[in-house]
Amino acid sequence: MIKKRLMTPGPTQVPEEALLSLARQVTHHRTAEFRKLFAEVLVGLKEVFATKHDVIVLTSSGSGAMEAAVVNLVPRGGKAIVLEAGNFAQRWRKICDAFGIEVVRHEVTWGEAVDPADVKALLEKHPDAVAVFGTLMESSTGVGHDVKAIGEVVRGSKALFVVDAISGACVMECRTDEWGIDVLVVGSQKALMLPPGLAFLTLSPAAVKQMEQVKPQAFYFDLKQHRNKILEGPDTPWTPAHTMIAALAENLKLIRAEGIEKVWSRAKTLARATRAGLEAIGLELFAARPADGLTSVYLPTDVDGGAFLKRLEGRFGIKVAGGQAHLKGKIFRIAHMGIVDELDILSTLAAIELVLDELGRSVEFGAGCRAAQRVLAEGHPAAVG
Amino acid sequence: MIKKRLMTPGPTQVPEEALLSLARQVTHHRTAEFRKLFAEVLVGLKEVFATKHDVIVLTSSGSGAMEAAVVNLVPRGGKAIVLEAGNFAQRWRKICDAFGIEVVRHEVTWGEAVDPADVKALLEKHPDAVAVFGTLMESSTGVGHDVKAIGEVVRGSKALFVVDAISGACVMECRTDEWGIDVLVVGSQKALMLPPGLAFLTLSPAAVKQMEQVKPQAFYFDLKQHRNKILEGPDTPWTPAHTMIAALAENLKLIRAEGIEKVWSRAKTLARATRAGLEAIGLELFAARPADGLTSVYLPTDVDGGAFLKRLEGRFGIKVAGGQAHLKGKIFRIAHMGIVDELDILSTLAAIELVLDELGRSVEFGAGCRAAQRVLAEGHPAAVG
Repeated sequence: MIKKRLMTPGPTQVPEEALLSLARQVTHHRTAEFRKLFAEVLVGLKEVFATKHDVIVLTSSGSGAMEAAVVNLVPRGGKAIVLEAGNFAQRWRKICDAFGIEVVRHEVTWGEAVDPADVKALLEKHPDAVAVFGTLMESSTGVGHDVKAIGEVVRGSKALFVVDAISGACVMECRTDEWGIDVLVVGSQKALMLPPGLAFLTLSPAAVKQMEQVKPQAFYFDLKQHRNKILEGPDTPWTPAHTMIAALAENLKLIRAEGIEKVWSRAKTLARATRAGLEAIGLELFAARPADGLTSVYLPTDVDGGAFLKRLEGRFGIKVAGGQAHLKGKIFRIAHMGIVDELDILSTLAAIELVLDELGRSVEFGAGCRAAQRVLAEGHPAAVG
Repeated sequence: MIKKRLMTPGPTQVPEEALLSLARQVTHHRTAEFRKLFAEVLVGLKEVFATKHDVIVLTSSGSGAMEAAVVNLVPRGGKAIVLEAGNFAQRWRKICDAFGIEVVRHEVTWGEAVDPADVKALLEKHPDAVAVFGTLMESSTGVGHDVKAIGEVVRGSKALFVVDAISGACVMECRTDEWGIDVLVVGSQKALMLPPGLAFLTLSPAAVKQMEQVKPQAFYFDLKQHRNKILEGPDTPWTPAHTMIAALAENLKLIRAEGIEKVWSRAKTLARATRAGLEAIGLELFAARPADGLTSVYLPTDVDGGAFLKRLEGRFGIKVAGGQAHLKGKIFRIAHMGIVDELDILSTLAAIELVLDELGRSVEFGAGCRAAQRVLAEGHPAAVG
């Protein structure tokens, strides 16, 4: 009788509307009905990704869309700058390595944010770089990078700006066109509130122009083929996970009804409340520039960190994420994106206090909730209206 | 009030058990629970694919798995023989082209089957071919190729035998290990009765050996990474469409409860019944060597073919597939795979008669059903038991 509460930064909780859509009998995907649905979904995606340009839908995880961005923009032997500030940012480099692309690595300590001035210096040193690969919200560290400021810097160069927003899109403010992002890469199982299986890319006119000049090391991920089918149909060159696209249509209705600006600001408040609550409990935050969609926090060192996470799940059904790579056993991560709401966060804070108490730490019950509630009380729309 | 009846060769009807599984709230995928589920699914897949060796699960459509087979086995500049006997077989060549692989094209008229003797001659002429890419069930033409005989021929060469069984696996007899198939490529939305979004590959020891010698033009589809995670976890290198894997577990229970041999023989009977029914209606079959999972048939030429298909769907909710490429407007295709059953076929035959009558053709009502029923009466287990 343990109620499950998924609080990980992907996959996240899926709204009932999307789940029920996934339970519908399958229909064919090469039909006028599907094209109509797909067209609506594309309109919605443009709105929530804050772009007027084309959006591509891939049947893959976010890593597949990262590969698509790399191989369609940078030819073998081309040069790319990778802003490597976490486990997922590293993936950009690994993809470049696999396809014979020269990487200029900009290594940033995990937990720190990329400094736009460093990107400027790198671009001056490497004017032949075809692209800069960065991250909006690095979910391995909980850092939100200053993509707006980095975008300004990249705009002054010849390079394209490609942003991994797999977990960050639709939870952290991200004005794709306005901020000069040429390609935004997004995953389905984060703030878009779907199961894993779809990934998305936005394409600026400059990205399209570059794609047209590159013979990509790609077939399945050949974005020219995808874009042509979007323009024709809209359709897809290969069979899409179309039942997921139908479920996405449901979630886009929810997001658009609230409005993407409100979704962003709600997440910002939730993130502040989470941090205030955790600090009131006496836990130490990890990220230097915390993201809006998840909070990373050091595991308490005076109790057994593994036992702590196990009890959170075993007693309260709360699944948070541990650390990745060298952060394993050092931090844990709580998501606040999609339909994760205020009461989910307050419950999680209360559960953390109860578990710490069980494990023998001295705890002031209610401190975490109180601090978080104070933030929510100022930020909550009800307090204003 | 039109009840929908999906009779296309992919996607096919999804059993209720899998649909309900897809409606469950999402859980995390990096857990002991998921690894246990995944391990069970892999055991099931090995059984239904008739292999003792590794099976890889990709989050992509079948085309992604085809690309994975190509780029992991054949290096850039390497040579491959493509048995090009339909729209989907052509995809092998297009993938090879995209990655700089030299293709020996063996073009076969659409609707005809590949002659194993021709494959033998090609292998003798091209002893340096790394792989032969063929098809089990070409769903664009409805032909079932003699993969067993082709496998015998390829076994006598140095080449690996790679078979697109995206639509054919689990409906047409296919003894992967016994027939010398090194890589079998399978899709989720055909006889495995899932929505699109997953694809599968089997890997013979020879395929694994070859993979280890090739630096693949791949990251997302790098099969070494996938295989290593299978051996470790089992797990996946990138986030999998794990809710689809959970739904697959449900379908594998159904298939294994019946037994793959029975699934194959049931499809064979259903295919014979479909052909008998269509011929009794006076329609002309298209495929020279008809497949067990779908039947391709010429559109009647004395009535409007487009109107015929439209009425089948509009009046009876029956969605069959039209022809692809140059076969568009010439043939249509009826699937009998997965949970498509005897009564679905009889209903479809009855509907065809009613629509032909409506469109002004002289029809002997009941002729199609009668002919099909006669086949089912001999083949049906109830007649024997």
